[in-house]
Amino acid sequence: MPTIFFYGPELDVEKKREIIKSFTESASRLTGIDKSAFVVYLRPSSADIVGVGGELLRDRMEREER
Amino acid sequence: MPTIFFYGPELDVEKKREIIKSFTESASRLTGIDKSAFVVYLRPSSADIVGVGGELLRDRMEREER
Amino acid sequence: MPTIFFYGPELDVEKKREIIKSFTESASRLTGIDKSAFVVYLRPSSADIVGVGGELLRDRMEREER
Amino acid sequence: MPTIFFYGPELDVEKKREIIKSFTESASRLTGIDKSAFVVYLRPSSADIVGVGGELLRDRMEREER
Amino acid sequence: MPTIFFYGPELDVEKKREIIKSFTESASRLTGIDKSAFVVYLRPSSADIVGVGGELLRDRMEREER
Amino acid sequence: MPTIFFYGPELDVEKKREIIKSFTESASRLTGIDKSAFVVYLRPSSADIVGVGGELLRDRMEREER
Repeated sequence: MPTIFFYGPELDVEKKREIIKSFTESASRLTGIDKSAFVVYLRPSSADIVGVGGELLRDRMEREER
Repeated sequence: MPTIFFYGPELDVEKKREIIKSFTESASRLTGIDKSAFVVYLRPSSADIVGVGGELLRDRMEREER
Repeated sequence: MPTIFFYGPELDVEKKREIIKSFTESASRLTGIDKSAFVVYLRPSSADIVGVGGELLRDRMEREER
Repeated sequence: MPTIFFYGPELDVEKKREIIKSFTESASRLTGIDKSAFVVYLRPSSADIVGVGGELLRDRMEREER
Repeated sequence: MPTIFFYGPELDVEKKREIIKSFTESASRLTGIDKSAFVVYLRPSSADIVGVGGELLRDRMEREER
Repeated sequence: MPTIFFYGPELDVEKKREIIKSFTESASRLTGIDKSAFVVYLRPSSADIVGVGGELLRDRMEREER
């Protein structure tokens, strides 16, 4: 029944597969709970809806690119 | 003030109405808190962003269909 | 794999059983997903860590009792 | 490392900037933790996926408009 | 109906009051939604259950104190 | 800024260190974001507040032990 939520950037499908596999294997090994019981939710969070250090992430990224 | 989050498949509007009604009525009855205080968030989670048992749900569904 | 979070008052064990059963049965019926796939997390939230309408719930409750 | 989640209506970009700035400044001042450590997630929640008082928010809004 | 979750350090009761008031007032002003509709959950997260930069926050704090 | 939540059993401190390290390293490698930006929240969820398959996890565990 353990449940993992990942709030981060959008990933391509191959990386989604890898992150789900990796999180589940680590957590299964450390908890001793069978992998079949784990659920992972990838919640993509674009730079338009995230704030870091008090500013919109999109604004920070654009400033850093300049 | 109680708050309920549902992470699951996308539902059509009639089923959304029913799940909100049902969750709220059960929880109101069991807590004794008036229904007006309840908020329910339906967070649709497609098979492209969910992992079950260490694999992407989309992959599992496609394998099971075959 | 659907997952339900309930943020609300602490419940006694019999009510926990009922709310878990009720949420799971409603959601299973409406989604068509087998009950065995559902996980419910009851996250108790005492009046000391909840704010409603801009004030600590504990303060509001004490004011209303008077 | 503190993290703030806001589940509410979709906001325009200027209001997103303000809400991120305001939440971060308040929380930094009250916790004594540097603003750079704060992350804010704005999770837009349209009236089609929210229930209030046991009914879909969309339905309530349409009824009140009449 | 908007809902705010704050994952951060344990606060004393006066600071809890202030953070709830401040978050609610900012969010009410920016969304145009009445303060009475806002719920804030303070989810205290001690340094024993938080990881930052890949290490337990407790370990980092002890190292920095030395 | 990515954030990971783990809802699962209580872990001893050495396993907490390992799960935080493992999640952060996997996610950093796959996203290309520096490890320093990751925050992990371990939210312990005892068998008294979790439901699986419509029943309290505590009840299921006791039945299976017999």
